[in-house]
Amino acid sequence: MTDERLAELERRLQRVEDERAIERLIASYGPLVDAGEADSAAQLWAADGTYDVEGWPMRSREDVAAMVRSDEHQGLIGRGACHFLGPAVVTVDGDDAVAVCESVLVIHRGEGFTVWRAGANHFRLRRIDGRWQIVARITRTLDGKAEARELLSAGVAGR
Amino acid sequence: MTDERLAELERRLQRVEDERAIERLIASYGPLVDAGEADSAAQLWAADGTYDVEGWPMRSREDVAAMVRSDEHQGLIGRGACHFLGPAVVTVDGDDAVAVCESVLVIHRGEGFTVWRAGANHFRLRRIDGRWQIVARITRTLDGKAEARELLSAGVAGR
Amino acid sequence: MTDERLAELERRLQRVEDERAIERLIASYGPLVDAGEADSAAQLWAADGTYDVEGWPMRSREDVAAMVRSDEHQGLIGRGACHFLGPAVVTVDGDDAVAVCESVLVIHRGEGFTVWRAGANHFRLRRIDGRWQIVARITRTLDGKAEARELLSAGVAGR
Repeated sequence: MTDERLAELERRLQRVEDERAIERLIASYGPLVDAGEADSAAQLWAADGTYDVEGWPMRSREDVAAMVRSDEHQGLIGRGACHFLGPAVVTVDGDDAVAVCESVLVIHRGEGFTVWRAGANHFRLRRIDGRWQIVARITRTLDGKAEARELLSAGVAGR
Repeated sequence: MTDERLAELERRLQRVEDERAIERLIASYGPLVDAGEADSAAQLWAADGTYDVEGWPMRSREDVAAMVRSDEHQGLIGRGACHFLGPAVVTVDGDDAVAVCESVLVIHRGEGFTVWRAGANHFRLRRIDGRWQIVARITRTLDGKAEARELLSAGVAGR
Repeated sequence: MTDERLAELERRLQRVEDERAIERLIASYGPLVDAGEADSAAQLWAADGTYDVEGWPMRSREDVAAMVRSDEHQGLIGRGACHFLGPAVVTVDGDDAVAVCESVLVIHRGEGFTVWRAGANHFRLRRIDGRWQIVARITRTLDGKAEARELLSAGVAGR
């Protein structure tokens, strides 16, 4: 009886910890890329993890790090940028997980700031070597097209 | 002694799980309505739950689903919209709970995006049939009027 | 064996509760200052806690409350403002903690809203009298300068 209660507590707490680890990973993305931390941002991905953002397909940690080091991204954060991701909805299934959140990209322009983009973000994650890592992220602009909306639907449903 | 420690752990973990279930529910709202998932969004509410957003009182799941299916909402997400809700502050008391968060509504316009509205969101929730459901949500624009500010005060205090 | 499993569960759950208490504290900041709750906002800080926001150094709870009661802040929330803080990345080490998040300040202007500022927020917290309190918060505008970016790097690394 005590053993069963302990096992059940361990199982429930493990689920909370897994979901929280993924939430933390996603919450770290914006601060890391806005700081220009190319290597730390890349470590959020699996070695061969992918990041498909409109017009910019990445296929590895090296590709993610190269994106952060690119002239385009450096120009953005050199002027001032905030990749602002909202609270993620996370669904864990053993060593696999799906997460979804919306985001806004706010950039410094003139005296103030402007919202350059709002997006849908869909993540597939896997526990590899005891650490959750992104195996596939897709980001699409919320411009009314079906694809961004399908990412949101799938993500909340844990697909 | 072991029994007491187990019971205490179960009680504490249950509270964390309850709060997290509500946080997840609230984090799901934006993705669901931006995807146009009328029925899934409506399921976040109790059957007779209410949603009072300026100029649009809803009194049931059917009303919430009808709002998502309305020409106004469909026009919004057809052009591109992001109902972006921030991290919620949740206070659980048995089978009842209060939650509060701020939000921004970002819409696609021309080449970019603009913040159409910033709001205060106050939720009353109840555990019904073992699942947390919204029994009353009030959203008010943060335009300086007292009502939005009172929602924030009450929500953080768990009222 | 049972005792060890119980102690391990208690230790893990305590860490989750500590991190969550800090997340809740940070999620409360925006709603409290946008509501004008000067005293409740000040209570998020330690008695001699500091808040260093560009051009406005505060050295105590009284200073934080005075900021909320200031003409400048009252003018902001009287017209309508949303201090929107994102999900925090929290690192707890015993009775000390570091947290970081990004934020946008959205203000009501004319018919709509505009993003006035995007910022990096770095928090040092301490458990004092059994309650997590801010001992030092630094906020810097994300305008491309190194300081804001260093706050983000340090915060995610738990420094």
